[in-house]
Amino acid sequence: MGNTFGRMFRVTTWGESHGDAVGVTIDGCPPLVEIDLADIQYDLDRRKPGQSLITSQRRESDRAQILSGVFEDQSLGTPIHIIVHNEDQKSKDYEHMKDKFRPSHADFTYQSKYGIRNWKGGGRASARETIGRVAAGAIAKKILKNDYDVQIIGYVKQIWNIIADIDPSKVSKDGVESSSIRCPDPVSSEKMFNAIDKARKNRDSLGGIIELVVHNVPIGLGSPVFDKLDADLAKAMLSLPASKGFEIGSGFGGVSMPGSEHNDEFYTSEKGTVKTRTNYSGGIQGGISNGEDIIIRVAFKPPATIMKEQNTINENLEDVVLEGRGRHDPCVLPRAVPIVEAMTALVLMDHVLLQRGQVGHV
Amino acid sequence: MGNTFGRMFRVTTWGESHGDAVGVTIDGCPPLVEIDLADIQYDLDRRKPGQSLITSQRRESDRAQILSGVFEDQSLGTPIHIIVHNEDQKSKDYEHMKDKFRPSHADFTYQSKYGIRNWKGGGRASARETIGRVAAGAIAKKILKNDYDVQIIGYVKQIWNIIADIDPSKVSKDGVESSSIRCPDPVSSEKMFNAIDKARKNRDSLGGIIELVVHNVPIGLGSPVFDKLDADLAKAMLSLPASKGFEIGSGFGGVSMPGSEHNDEFYTSEKGTVKTRTNYSGGIQGGISNGEDIIIRVAFKPPATIMKEQNTINENLEDVVLEGRGRHDPCVLPRAVPIVEAMTALVLMDHVLLQRGQVGHV
Amino acid sequence: MGNTFGRMFRVTTWGESHGDAVGVTIDGCPPLVEIDLADIQYDLDRRKPGQSLITSQRRESDRAQILSGVFEDQSLGTPIHIIVHNEDQKSKDYEHMKDKFRPSHADFTYQSKYGIRNWKGGGRASARETIGRVAAGAIAKKILKNDYDVQIIGYVKQIWNIIADIDPSKVSKDGVESSSIRCPDPVSSEKMFNAIDKARKNRDSLGGIIELVVHNVPIGLGSPVFDKLDADLAKAMLSLPASKGFEIGSGFGGVSMPGSEHNDEFYTSEKGTVKTRTNYSGGIQGGISNGEDIIIRVAFKPPATIMKEQNTINENLEDVVLEGRGRHDPCVLPRAVPIVEAMTALVLMDHVLLQRGQVGHV
Amino acid sequence: MGNTFGRMFRVTTWGESHGDAVGVTIDGCPPLVEIDLADIQYDLDRRKPGQSLITSQRRESDRAQILSGVFEDQSLGTPIHIIVHNEDQKSKDYEHMKDKFRPSHADFTYQSKYGIRNWKGGGRASARETIGRVAAGAIAKKILKNDYDVQIIGYVKQIWNIIADIDPSKVSKDGVESSSIRCPDPVSSEKMFNAIDKARKNRDSLGGIIELVVHNVPIGLGSPVFDKLDADLAKAMLSLPASKGFEIGSGFGGVSMPGSEHNDEFYTSEKGTVKTRTNYSGGIQGGISNGEDIIIRVAFKPPATIMKEQNTINENLEDVVLEGRGRHDPCVLPRAVPIVEAMTALVLMDHVLLQRGQVGHV
Repeated sequence: MGNTFGRMFRVTTWGESHGDAVGVTIDGCPPLVEIDLADIQYDLDRRKPGQSLITSQRRESDRAQILSGVFEDQSLGTPIHIIVHNEDQKSKDYEHMKDKFRPSHADFTYQSKYGIRNWKGGGRASARETIGRVAAGAIAKKILKNDYDVQIIGYVKQIWNIIADIDPSKVSKDGVESSSIRCPDPVSSEKMFNAIDKARKNRDSLGGIIELVVHNVPIGLGSPVFDKLDADLAKAMLSLPASKGFEIGSGFGGVSMPGSEHNDEFYTSEKGTVKTRTNYSGGIQGGISNGEDIIIRVAFKPPATIMKEQNTINENLEDVVLEGRGRHDPCVLPRAVPIVEAMTALVLMDHVLLQRGQVGHV
Repeated sequence: MGNTFGRMFRVTTWGESHGDAVGVTIDGCPPLVEIDLADIQYDLDRRKPGQSLITSQRRESDRAQILSGVFEDQSLGTPIHIIVHNEDQKSKDYEHMKDKFRPSHADFTYQSKYGIRNWKGGGRASARETIGRVAAGAIAKKILKNDYDVQIIGYVKQIWNIIADIDPSKVSKDGVESSSIRCPDPVSSEKMFNAIDKARKNRDSLGGIIELVVHNVPIGLGSPVFDKLDADLAKAMLSLPASKGFEIGSGFGGVSMPGSEHNDEFYTSEKGTVKTRTNYSGGIQGGISNGEDIIIRVAFKPPATIMKEQNTINENLEDVVLEGRGRHDPCVLPRAVPIVEAMTALVLMDHVLLQRGQVGHV
Repeated sequence: MGNTFGRMFRVTTWGESHGDAVGVTIDGCPPLVEIDLADIQYDLDRRKPGQSLITSQRRESDRAQILSGVFEDQSLGTPIHIIVHNEDQKSKDYEHMKDKFRPSHADFTYQSKYGIRNWKGGGRASARETIGRVAAGAIAKKILKNDYDVQIIGYVKQIWNIIADIDPSKVSKDGVESSSIRCPDPVSSEKMFNAIDKARKNRDSLGGIIELVVHNVPIGLGSPVFDKLDADLAKAMLSLPASKGFEIGSGFGGVSMPGSEHNDEFYTSEKGTVKTRTNYSGGIQGGISNGEDIIIRVAFKPPATIMKEQNTINENLEDVVLEGRGRHDPCVLPRAVPIVEAMTALVLMDHVLLQRGQVGHV
Repeated sequence: MGNTFGRMFRVTTWGESHGDAVGVTIDGCPPLVEIDLADIQYDLDRRKPGQSLITSQRRESDRAQILSGVFEDQSLGTPIHIIVHNEDQKSKDYEHMKDKFRPSHADFTYQSKYGIRNWKGGGRASARETIGRVAAGAIAKKILKNDYDVQIIGYVKQIWNIIADIDPSKVSKDGVESSSIRCPDPVSSEKMFNAIDKARKNRDSLGGIIELVVHNVPIGLGSPVFDKLDADLAKAMLSLPASKGFEIGSGFGGVSMPGSEHNDEFYTSEKGTVKTRTNYSGGIQGGISNGEDIIIRVAFKPPATIMKEQNTINENLEDVVLEGRGRHDPCVLPRAVPIVEAMTALVLMDHVLLQRGQVGHV
């Protein structure tokens, strides 16, 4: 249960971090979409480990193979299956903590829920599971771009206590990718890199915040009252490993503004389209997109697996000391950017199809 | 689409703020549960308008009627239907803004999405829709309490820039209910009341933050990777009118802690149960409950409908000035507490049934 | 669980035969559909008891009220709720069999499954539950008619061993409605009436077969591999009280034809459309509509509740003799025709929206 | 859309007949189930081509690989993924009919629905897709056997006009498997073999009926009103390639019995359990299992692809003559037996988990 996301554009993932492979089935993709493996690989490469000194050194080429649903480079409308083989599992690294519960990791809860867990690596709790999301998201991104010129740009807004200075309306994909941190503010990016590197050397880890902006969102996406567009985005983001919070538009900060200041005044643009002078709503009102930029933020805690010694217990509930091993990210933020983008694309794509289904057009 | 919540404990709501009635169908309720209308009415009364000077003065008794699914005070296992008739619609209040779009309200997006809207009142975007959620949540609360001694307590943590000083582990339902604001810190409660009253007199509105704690959560609830317990809570909360953010445990604040500090150390309690020394995780690890208190926070923006004059446009895209009328809350937080509790109960109840289904016990 | 049907055009029913009311929520109805209560009432009147001597004499006006989702006679795109109050429950008729299990009825299985049942009337197992289906189906029928000129005509093909002689391609709605049996073959209709009347006098009951034809089905409806159009029709029909079988096109009879005879030869019509010379497929190939008439048949067993004395057991597992009371149909077929039509309309409407969502047009 | 089956025990299949592989994800499998690849392979071998002269001569070893969800031979509770690589595609056989529509096949409807199709082989319409169903069904069968001693036995009841004489209550798995037709009546089996062989030589094809019996079904499975156990079985069976009809218990034949004869009289067995003297209900009453044997029948039409010349049209809507090539079954029944069994197991397993979830026990 729980491994399928979406209603019309449905994504089902499978696979553990130290199993043979991970994969994804995409059901509901419109037919006749040009599917280019390079688009998928581009985002997988942005997600993969080993991109820099400050990411996990696990060596994975993360090569995607499409096993079904595509014929002569076009989608058939039937399930697309994409598989990525694992190549560099080092399960031995996990043997010393086979029966120990890493603090704040999912070891204890998986074991308690199911009565069993794959202790070789993180199993389904590993971020390796997100490969399927990124692959599916790349297809959704492409359709959204082709059909509506939707542009989804995520970036690192904060690492630890270092907050970047970024104007969401002006950030560019190139600006993001030119930073190994995926933070388009060069000054902050450097500070962030140093902070992560220092944490790494300290055998510690850091968290942060990813911000994401979507341009050219079609008006009318979202299905109140439960499947509001922002509700589905919130679920998408909190389903990511290590995420602890979600906000849209003014978010938590907006609560200290009075309504007269917070309300986004409507006006008619020169092109005759409806616009708002401010965007505290973050592009969604009443759970439905209003055509303004969608702006969201996602909080990620520092990774649980650290190299420092920690007190914990084992499966016999005895006190033990745990020393981390394995290859882990001291900070997940730089690699999480394409994942947050992918989940956004999946939510938007699903709602495009829902809207087209119920109302007949988008 | 989008008006059903949950998979095993499924709730479907219907009704508009100025229609004849609002209602809810609960499908999947276990049989042989004692259903007491008084439990449902208790929470509806906490939600209803007119509770104090600083809430909407709409006069609604909000009397629930159970039309099916209960026999001799016990649930049958078949759909429970609960209806509440609207009594005090004043649709005339809305005629002057029939073709005007209230800034930051759902008028524009509903009209754009569907090509039609019920301009008499807020339609489905009205918080009146949450009556069905609260009624269903009262049943879920009761089952959770009876079967697992689960206790769900929400309260107002912040209004505008007034932040209450509350220890989640010690807050009591009586403490919450003794405050008209539902803020169990008496000093802050009074400040909050005054701030809201002042905003009301200024024809303005205020936002804030609700915090909620759940005691005695069964271990093992949550269905990774997409239907994580926190992911479903996030969706539940962002599906509420006026909510702009969700966080769990350390949330956005936790990003400035290093992993060595943020990790919750496991230990074995004197009773032989697994506990953590801190609870930055907020009771959920890897998307699955770990038995510690669940602690979440939800940000609510200031209500969009204010009595002040505002610039906006009408359906012809012409500039107009809008002056609010109707009976509205200058701050939704006090009445939102039972709604946040209800959504929490619905999520937990659904996951109890899912876990019982897949694994065989909770 | 189990009280919602459809994915995009979603119908949720509630209510028991001897409760206050029965009702239905329709979620996903396209906006701007003209909703005329008379259309709904027309089909409810075809379903209601007391239409003739050979139907149940329960006196129900079965007046539908629309409580939400319609504004100035147009659908809003938000949930439509329709309620019908029960008026003529005679629960006393059931007291003598309060703890007895009617043979082949759902008394025993409901009691065993849930540990409780509403013994006053048939509870959810009563055909009274189908009121919601018929009301929702009337809306689906109207949309299908308006948008695609789809015409759905059901009729009684067989009662007991009396088989009517009917050409599905030529049957008319008027022909059906001119018969109290809803059998457009006048000779058979009279025989059927007499057979049912005789069974009624014998305190017995009769079964039969309903055949249904759909003209002008859009090509391309159906979602292989599991949600094939015929698979969803089969589920829809077997979800009806007393149904025991479903077949499409050649059905069970077709198994004795060789492939060379059974295959439907394609040709191009004078209008340039693709047609088949025969229609053993019944309008669906590979789970997808091909534009030919859909032709299905549904078998209904004789009603379980008869007035004759029967041996059975009670809740203490003791042998008892049961004599039926209450007002029951000696044959459900005439009243089941609009129900079979409604379920067909719900399936088609759902697949129209699914197809429009995924592929962009129907 | 449409490639997922089940709610709690959820199966998602992917893959085309002439692609690289076919596969299945099983989500919701209980943890700690012993998973033996041999069990899966046993049923795949019963389904695979090349078992005898009268089945397709395509050479496929159909070797299953488990890629996730199993750890040290036990299910983890997370998604199980099973893949089978295609080995013997001969797409050249299809080139001559690349743009021709096979009569009664899915070529035309897939092309019309999606605007594209994989003309190399049958794509998703091929029975090769059922490999995933059979693999998943083998796991479901095992759990049902271990936990409740459920036994599911399918067999060929009729081929063409040859009807076997079989007592469902006495049929054994060995009896079925000792016949190459999977018909446990030896006399009929031989006649059937000869009839199929003759059809094959005539370049023609034959249909038939599969009957299936389930012993030891737990009482209480099924979720009225829409997700009745028989409704889900009907959907499962009509989702199979070439199926045209479904019936349960007395089925279509039962309509000529009066209620007094058709009703199944309850009595208390010597063991103190509730039994019925007859079983015209086929083990399900009111959509819920009553503990008696479930008995169903599924009609399969003769395969559409035959070697005889047939008139049809091509994509340009021109008249053409088509001569079948490729390796096809002249009759699908013998290989369809394990598929019908698998779908039955999936439905029952899903309802076991649903019942356990809602009611707490099975």
